[in-house]
Amino acid sequence: MSQNKIRAAILGASGYTGAELVRLLAGHGGFRIVALTADRKVGQTMGTVFPHLAGLDLPAMVGVDQVDYADVDAVFCGLPHGTTQEIIAGLPPHLKVVDLSADFRLADTATYAQWYGHEHKAPALQREAVYGLTELARDAVRKARLVANPGCYPTSAQLPLVPLLRAGLIDANDIIIDAKSGVSGAGRAAKEANLYTEVAGGIHAYGIASHRHAPEIEQGLSAAAGRPVVVNFTPHLMPMSRGILSTIYVRLAAGAAVADLRGELSRRYAGEAFVRVLPEGVVPATRHVTGSNHCLIGVFADRVPGRGIICSVIDNLVKGASGQAVQNMNLMFGLAETAGLEQQPLFP
Amino acid sequence: MSQNKIRAAILGASGYTGAELVRLLAGHGGFRIVALTADRKVGQTMGTVFPHLAGLDLPAMVGVDQVDYADVDAVFCGLPHGTTQEIIAGLPPHLKVVDLSADFRLADTATYAQWYGHEHKAPALQREAVYGLTELARDAVRKARLVANPGCYPTSAQLPLVPLLRAGLIDANDIIIDAKSGVSGAGRAAKEANLYTEVAGGIHAYGIASHRHAPEIEQGLSAAAGRPVVVNFTPHLMPMSRGILSTIYVRLAAGAAVADLRGELSRRYAGEAFVRVLPEGVVPATRHVTGSNHCLIGVFADRVPGRGIICSVIDNLVKGASGQAVQNMNLMFGLAETAGLEQQPLFP
Amino acid sequence: MSQNKIRAAILGASGYTGAELVRLLAGHGGFRIVALTADRKVGQTMGTVFPHLAGLDLPAMVGVDQVDYADVDAVFCGLPHGTTQEIIAGLPPHLKVVDLSADFRLADTATYAQWYGHEHKAPALQREAVYGLTELARDAVRKARLVANPGCYPTSAQLPLVPLLRAGLIDANDIIIDAKSGVSGAGRAAKEANLYTEVAGGIHAYGIASHRHAPEIEQGLSAAAGRPVVVNFTPHLMPMSRGILSTIYVRLAAGAAVADLRGELSRRYAGEAFVRVLPEGVVPATRHVTGSNHCLIGVFADRVPGRGIICSVIDNLVKGASGQAVQNMNLMFGLAETAGLEQQPLFP
Amino acid sequence: MSQNKIRAAILGASGYTGAELVRLLAGHGGFRIVALTADRKVGQTMGTVFPHLAGLDLPAMVGVDQVDYADVDAVFCGLPHGTTQEIIAGLPPHLKVVDLSADFRLADTATYAQWYGHEHKAPALQREAVYGLTELARDAVRKARLVANPGCYPTSAQLPLVPLLRAGLIDANDIIIDAKSGVSGAGRAAKEANLYTEVAGGIHAYGIASHRHAPEIEQGLSAAAGRPVVVNFTPHLMPMSRGILSTIYVRLAAGAAVADLRGELSRRYAGEAFVRVLPEGVVPATRHVTGSNHCLIGVFADRVPGRGIICSVIDNLVKGASGQAVQNMNLMFGLAETAGLEQQPLFP
Repeated sequence: MSQNKIRAAILGASGYTGAELVRLLAGHGGFRIVALTADRKVGQTMGTVFPHLAGLDLPAMVGVDQVDYADVDAVFCGLPHGTTQEIIAGLPPHLKVVDLSADFRLADTATYAQWYGHEHKAPALQREAVYGLTELARDAVRKARLVANPGCYPTSAQLPLVPLLRAGLIDANDIIIDAKSGVSGAGRAAKEANLYTEVAGGIHAYGIASHRHAPEIEQGLSAAAGRPVVVNFTPHLMPMSRGILSTIYVRLAAGAAVADLRGELSRRYAGEAFVRVLPEGVVPATRHVTGSNHCLIGVFADRVPGRGIICSVIDNLVKGASGQAVQNMNLMFGLAETAGLEQQPLFP
Repeated sequence: MSQNKIRAAILGASGYTGAELVRLLAGHGGFRIVALTADRKVGQTMGTVFPHLAGLDLPAMVGVDQVDYADVDAVFCGLPHGTTQEIIAGLPPHLKVVDLSADFRLADTATYAQWYGHEHKAPALQREAVYGLTELARDAVRKARLVANPGCYPTSAQLPLVPLLRAGLIDANDIIIDAKSGVSGAGRAAKEANLYTEVAGGIHAYGIASHRHAPEIEQGLSAAAGRPVVVNFTPHLMPMSRGILSTIYVRLAAGAAVADLRGELSRRYAGEAFVRVLPEGVVPATRHVTGSNHCLIGVFADRVPGRGIICSVIDNLVKGASGQAVQNMNLMFGLAETAGLEQQPLFP
Repeated sequence: MSQNKIRAAILGASGYTGAELVRLLAGHGGFRIVALTADRKVGQTMGTVFPHLAGLDLPAMVGVDQVDYADVDAVFCGLPHGTTQEIIAGLPPHLKVVDLSADFRLADTATYAQWYGHEHKAPALQREAVYGLTELARDAVRKARLVANPGCYPTSAQLPLVPLLRAGLIDANDIIIDAKSGVSGAGRAAKEANLYTEVAGGIHAYGIASHRHAPEIEQGLSAAAGRPVVVNFTPHLMPMSRGILSTIYVRLAAGAAVADLRGELSRRYAGEAFVRVLPEGVVPATRHVTGSNHCLIGVFADRVPGRGIICSVIDNLVKGASGQAVQNMNLMFGLAETAGLEQQPLFP
Repeated sequence: MSQNKIRAAILGASGYTGAELVRLLAGHGGFRIVALTADRKVGQTMGTVFPHLAGLDLPAMVGVDQVDYADVDAVFCGLPHGTTQEIIAGLPPHLKVVDLSADFRLADTATYAQWYGHEHKAPALQREAVYGLTELARDAVRKARLVANPGCYPTSAQLPLVPLLRAGLIDANDIIIDAKSGVSGAGRAAKEANLYTEVAGGIHAYGIASHRHAPEIEQGLSAAAGRPVVVNFTPHLMPMSRGILSTIYVRLAAGAAVADLRGELSRRYAGEAFVRVLPEGVVPATRHVTGSNHCLIGVFADRVPGRGIICSVIDNLVKGASGQAVQNMNLMFGLAETAGLEQQPLFP
């Protein structure tokens, strides 16, 4: 039976998103992992690099150019941005690819060059890439050969904001996104700033007015609003391993009430398996989505007249990365969208 | 199809083990939850008490005496010890029961009375109860109507020690178990000692020479050794939500080497889905089993001649409670032992 | 020599702010603790209730009505709001009092009644009370007999905002305060919501648009702006024991630049021992003030034209409570303002 | 007045022990910091490297060979082991030195070579060095020119064990030290294993039977016992920034009772400012010593006849490193032993 499974390769499997893909695919009946690649950790087994996965039967990690792509159907690409464009451009055309890096997220290659510091290396491929915020691009994802998997912050921010902007319920000129992220978003690279002792017991903002997820968010919001949108986006690093909370401050459009916002989002996401709009008064917490592909959204009135507050939570490694990647790949291969993603959150 | 599922009731569903049972059964094809009970939280929904489970379709929580047990096949009982004996004694005899409390774990009711401060209230039922450390009592569990699900610490300690004592490889008179537990083992009751501010950033021993899991461990080790065993068991509370590490210090039997211990355990658990004996030099960590039903065991030489060190890790809420309960119930109903328990650990 | 020390009583010493007062006064040459009171823990020693202080020579805890106030000069009052007003009203008039509760913070007793659910019980005393945000009320504090010690959130928010509103550099109609707090702000009472397992590894907003510190902040900002100010104030609970970060989003007044804001705050706090305005580009973190009476303020340009971002951090138990109380009491007795508060932050 | 202060240099100031020395000396009336050295961070200010200390007036960090040692009286040396021996050997002889590395802790240079992998580079200096476990070597420290500051684990283990071995109250052949450490003990170097995401929410043993603090502990215990002692020493890494708990399992000498052990330790440390033996039944916790130079010791009966349990806690960065270094330097210069070390622990 496993002969009929879709054969998946994970490029860049030695990072947290790679391990998370393995975790999710291990519980997925439709895929079989046939190749894992790494850079510095080539030759090691997944179980050595990630002992929590040592019980699985997995191929050893090889170099990205050592994979026989003729025996692969699906590629999850978790390589660093910058190198990704050329590698994906060099893959055989029969492959379906979900790219978890930032390399194909910005449709405007000039914007890419401005924020990432070098020219885009595969502009033709960029035109083909579908931005895979699944709930908002399902049909395009189904037909896509290359999906740019959204960033973690952009996922948490756009899921509530895009429908509200499309519906004209909020002022596109006054959007403030105060986001709080767990440390896994910074990856597994050894950096002083991410040591336990540097992160535990405290919080601080970072990348103020300069984080690369800002243009990605603005791309989505601009399309929804029908004109250029500039947002305040202020991420914070806090002592949790997983999770993002975006607390979003908005100004209501003339005539709109907070209940209208909640109503619009409830309608928009009514049939969705992973996005849930909470009843009035219920506050989402990151710990309610840990390990799951869920996004919870709460909408609240502000004391300042004419303003509202939206809280949106996801697990940055699941809906913010590997889970949404599996969700997209499911669609690309005509599988059930929820396959491999049914796990409930882990709490406490 | 769900009509053919085994109908499960969870008594005491408002605690962490109750929520964990719901999480596991939600991903289990063989059971359908038909009743949830609570005490103080009667009338609330599971999603109110545990928002991470709010997306599931579950019955509201009722009192333990409001359940129509005629429509139930399987009972998971997570009530406080003391009250459990009478409640289980009063259940209809057609039910299969896994009790997660301590009420049926000690075969000797005098020992129970000594450690729990009151006479055993169902001694006849006690004689029928099977102590469900699954890997060591599989056949008895299969035939059982009432399984006493082992304590978390006893699970982590007995899995390595019982086979070694049975094989005569270690000295039964010189066993020291230094255990470190996450805070969920203390339950969800509001206690000053378990506040975030009281637990974060520190560690301390508790229940020194007086913890109720000591007689439970000694019961199993005595049976394995064929004579009374008294152990040092010193639990510690530390800032993690889930997990137990038991670092166990043993004296080797005359002629035995550390490699013999590792070899014996490897043979003993060779075919097991959930217990894994690690290769020489690999150290288990609690974070490698989080959310899973796994137990990892490492065996190490001591610098002191003739001594060895065993590290055993589990997730206290899964293999140490709800996961092992599902594992036992699977056996009692003739299902695959791993059903509902295939989830990989969540890391980081 | 200790005979010449000011004799201090701490009412409500069994909570975190009480313990923190003891810690600070233990290193303060000018005060001698002559009385400690508690409610449920009457009769216990400080060392039993707070083992980290067991090495100090302290009076046992008595009831609040068992203190001989004739032998007391200074009272730190850390009782719950509601009961505080009558107790302070009943104290002998020779005493100087710093009240750490909310009971005398709101000058308008109608506002108090609205937010705290009962009529103010000592309106005459309210008129006498000085709101002790030390750096902004130093002269009044010096002459005060009763100081209302500010709340933790209001301290972190008002220190940057009041000077900017006074200088007319920001728009009083568009102030958003997204605050993140450690758990000690919730006190030591045993509550399910503050258990380690409920708080660790996650974050959520609480008290959205309804937190009692909102009117306190607005009182100060309105005075500074010269007209009524309503703010968005959204606190979040996160897994750290101490610390508050207020990330404040402001709209610049016409003609004002971000550098003007930083310049104004730098000038305003140039001579201050505890408030430090950071150079451009330096981001404050809560962990940089842990255990100290410091407040660090950073000012940043937003990508949205005409907007700015201010980050303000304090230790909620020190500058946000007990440290500022000592600072105020120092002034009230003519001592050096920094006495007992010279400790550097503890990191990591 | 600051002209009369002892002029101190801190070599290797860019690590956690360096920052901790600065913190303690900032509150110490007797020392003035005249030089700070770093390696990779040469040229930076202390406030840049450690923002929590940015408010202090400190010299910039220079290379270790750029210090004018003629203007220095006291050297705190926090350099990596291996390089330290030659650097200290090259310092002018008028300097008093406390070395926080492991380079002069082992009196037997052959043992040093065996455990540290290279020949000792200053054997003559080694003979002069005093092992500065202050309470057990006070007189020698007073006269010393070079003090080898003990390791963190050895401090926590030897303080209780040395007096008991000297008094013949425990069996030197049966000592098991199960130690739990915070992450700051691993230093500030960027390592994958010490990332927040790798440490949070879990625990594991490391350096089993191979940690370099074992021979240091055995050196002290052997001297106390009057014959060679080999111990089991098993350290664990857990999610806290500071603190060590050593849970020590001992066999009582013939005729000795647990009360004798507690009594002996109580007598031995009766007059000590920093070591406190707790009353029967009181369990020490690491969080009760955070930030202080305290060591708390509890002694408990085991359920296994003839055995006892000792819990010993310190802050690894204070009594386990920088605090004990200041304590030693105080003695070397004839200052009050407690100068600069009077701060109470920080809790929560």
